[in-house]
Amino acid sequence: MTALDHARAQGEQYRQQLHDLLRIPSISTDPDYAGEVLRAAEWIAADLRRIGAANVEIMPTGGHPVVYGEYRAAGANALTVLVYGHYDVQPASMEDGWDSEPFEPVERDGKIYARGSSDDKGQMFIHLKAFESLLANGGCPVNLKFVLEGEEEIGSANLQRFIQQHADKLTADVCVISDTGMRDIKQPAIIYALRGLTYMQLDVQGPARDLHSGGYGGMVHNPALALAQIIAKLHNADNSIAVPSFYDDVLALSDLEREQLAIQDIPLEKLRAETGVSADWGESAFTRRERISARPTMEINGLLSGWTGAGAKTVLPAKAMAKISCRLVANQDPQKIYELVRDYIASITPPSITAELTLINGGDPAIVDLSGAPMQAAVRAYERGWGVAPIFAREGGSIPVVADFKRILGIDSILMGFGLNTDGAHGPNEHFVIEMFHKGIDTAISFYEELGKQGA
Amino acid sequence: MTALDHARAQGEQYRQQLHDLLRIPSISTDPDYAGEVLRAAEWIAADLRRIGAANVEIMPTGGHPVVYGEYRAAGANALTVLVYGHYDVQPASMEDGWDSEPFEPVERDGKIYARGSSDDKGQMFIHLKAFESLLANGGCPVNLKFVLEGEEEIGSANLQRFIQQHADKLTADVCVISDTGMRDIKQPAIIYALRGLTYMQLDVQGPARDLHSGGYGGMVHNPALALAQIIAKLHNADNSIAVPSFYDDVLALSDLEREQLAIQDIPLEKLRAETGVSADWGESAFTRRERISARPTMEINGLLSGWTGAGAKTVLPAKAMAKISCRLVANQDPQKIYELVRDYIASITPPSITAELTLINGGDPAIVDLSGAPMQAAVRAYERGWGVAPIFAREGGSIPVVADFKRILGIDSILMGFGLNTDGAHGPNEHFVIEMFHKGIDTAISFYEELGKQGA
Repeated sequence: MTALDHARAQGEQYRQQLHDLLRIPSISTDPDYAGEVLRAAEWIAADLRRIGAANVEIMPTGGHPVVYGEYRAAGANALTVLVYGHYDVQPASMEDGWDSEPFEPVERDGKIYARGSSDDKGQMFIHLKAFESLLANGGCPVNLKFVLEGEEEIGSANLQRFIQQHADKLTADVCVISDTGMRDIKQPAIIYALRGLTYMQLDVQGPARDLHSGGYGGMVHNPALALAQIIAKLHNADNSIAVPSFYDDVLALSDLEREQLAIQDIPLEKLRAETGVSADWGESAFTRRERISARPTMEINGLLSGWTGAGAKTVLPAKAMAKISCRLVANQDPQKIYELVRDYIASITPPSITAELTLINGGDPAIVDLSGAPMQAAVRAYERGWGVAPIFAREGGSIPVVADFKRILGIDSILMGFGLNTDGAHGPNEHFVIEMFHKGIDTAISFYEELGKQGA
Repeated sequence: MTALDHARAQGEQYRQQLHDLLRIPSISTDPDYAGEVLRAAEWIAADLRRIGAANVEIMPTGGHPVVYGEYRAAGANALTVLVYGHYDVQPASMEDGWDSEPFEPVERDGKIYARGSSDDKGQMFIHLKAFESLLANGGCPVNLKFVLEGEEEIGSANLQRFIQQHADKLTADVCVISDTGMRDIKQPAIIYALRGLTYMQLDVQGPARDLHSGGYGGMVHNPALALAQIIAKLHNADNSIAVPSFYDDVLALSDLEREQLAIQDIPLEKLRAETGVSADWGESAFTRRERISARPTMEINGLLSGWTGAGAKTVLPAKAMAKISCRLVANQDPQKIYELVRDYIASITPPSITAELTLINGGDPAIVDLSGAPMQAAVRAYERGWGVAPIFAREGGSIPVVADFKRILGIDSILMGFGLNTDGAHGPNEHFVIEMFHKGIDTAISFYEELGKQGA
């Protein structure tokens, strides 16, 4: 019997175990549920011990704990994989529009309905059950370190510090994360790149106080106007970003990447239906898919100045504010981008106002080498699980923990997302497709087996 | 004895009468004070009757009443002057920082301290006392119609309708209003022009709902960016307004006007000290005084879009809003300006967003012919009151009633402001300079006498 056979034989039992975990309302954002969050951590720690993980412990952080467990029996010559997941969930209650109790899992129409079924208890559990199936059939061919956190839904506020504090303990060759979705159940996709972020605030100050527009309008530069004039100079006429050197560090797309992204391009009709816009926008030299995933962007996330209520107030405001953020791609650096934007804005700021650009936060972009050994192992694992080659996808957003693992531990993350974009994560009637759960276990087993063929 | 002699002899008594009126807290904005507003109206009606006005009545409006009184004894060949003023006041209480009770007038350092002393009970009362002094000494050489309202401090909401309803009763040759300030006690000034207003709201709609900037940023036009791009195209590089035909109806300044405005130009140091800006802004072909009074402007009064709180939210907002207003000069039309701006914005709106410009309100600009008979009468009156020729000034703001009188009754308004800009109208310790009160009565008498020399 193989590990895959074992997983199939145990499938029903694995799902019942998952149901037990899903019954625990481990809502991290609500202090009233802190006990439930801990109970979920204890449940997982117990399951890891039962499966056969070593050194299982519930490790404290500044907030909810991290469940840690490891497997070192593959030996010093085998690769070590860090498995990241999270056991906390978003809040949920019937009043939000659920058709069944969110913390009483039910299976119907080939899906498990429960809060956390897809995000992320179900996906995280795939790796525990792959590990269990491997151990029950001759052992796991790679060393594993499970890092399962309880604060992902509240921004992983303590995780970065946890990784720094325990960097020696967490050394690994590669990380695997199943906490994303794919677009098509028939066509597996591996996300190999995430965008980074530089989030800034631009404050324009005109006069020291609000002025009467009748008394001063015409001789004092209106800061809301000045702000708009600055913002309008951030893009060129072709919608590219006008900040000098902004694109200097952008890694060009390879032919393979452009080919892969072309398969996933977004039809204009789909964009229209999803968003209600009549025309798209952006850099015409790139496809829509490339623009939202492989190109850096600059967005205005907020504007505030003067009178914003109903009707009229003839104020010449003292100040105006914009929230401005850039999505970054490899190999752009958030701090460097902030400095480039800051210097450019300083260079176009007229003497009639002052403008200050503040860095609010930043995150590194991430990219995994498509031809690297871990990625090739994932490709073969998906081929075994699905019978078709996965496509390579890029995510437009950020997953900060991926950048943290890269920066602090120096390791890439393989994003083996087994959710579907239609799972309703964070919404009512969240569900996980049962077929995805089982294919996920198969694929994870294959991934570890493929990695086991490689040396450390 | 002349009317002027009479006014000087009665000066002390006139001030004591004014004190009585100032003791009535006729706060129009506070429903609790409605009885006091009515009491002030009755006090004034009684004074007009005692002086000798005819047909004195307290005329109802949709809100606080108008006190009306007239004098027709100058005869059909004499001019008729409509005297506008208001007897309502702003709220005031000791907690606002008054040094003495706001409704218990005290005289100190040559000033009367009380709410309404300058705005507008004291200035309005000047015309009652000029009328009284003339009647006591052979009669008034012009016919008078007093229209004294009780809602100026709450926007004169019912006045326009009142003027329309009673247009026949209110026919006159010219209006006089004392409800403005001058900058220098030694140098009288006559305001001969007011700016009008077109106040608009620009709403830009991007996607139908807020989007995640990571998922859509780069292929959807950000409406806050689009709004800034539109706003940036509203002015040319020389700070003039870029809307085609915007300046078509602007009345050019005469040599006399430019000469008069040059005397009143605002030194850059003064602007800096008053507002804290380091450099001025605007159309360099015009002086600062001209820019804020004789040139139309376009201001951004407010901006709102997306996330405006502390920190970061990576939203691609669905919409963005700007409040945009134009100060207008003679002979611009508020509706036409709205249409020009609307059409221009439509012409520069890209297909990737929608933009809608709504008219919120508008007001006509006003200008009085400097060489006209009423203005020349005012000039001679000031020369008699002050011993120096008045300068001609323009106000950057609007006084809607002036436009209403022009539009509905077809008459110009002579703005004989006897307040000083330092009187503290609307603030704590409002006061009226006693010398201005008496010089005001002298000047009003002289104005009526000068007008009396002209036929109807």
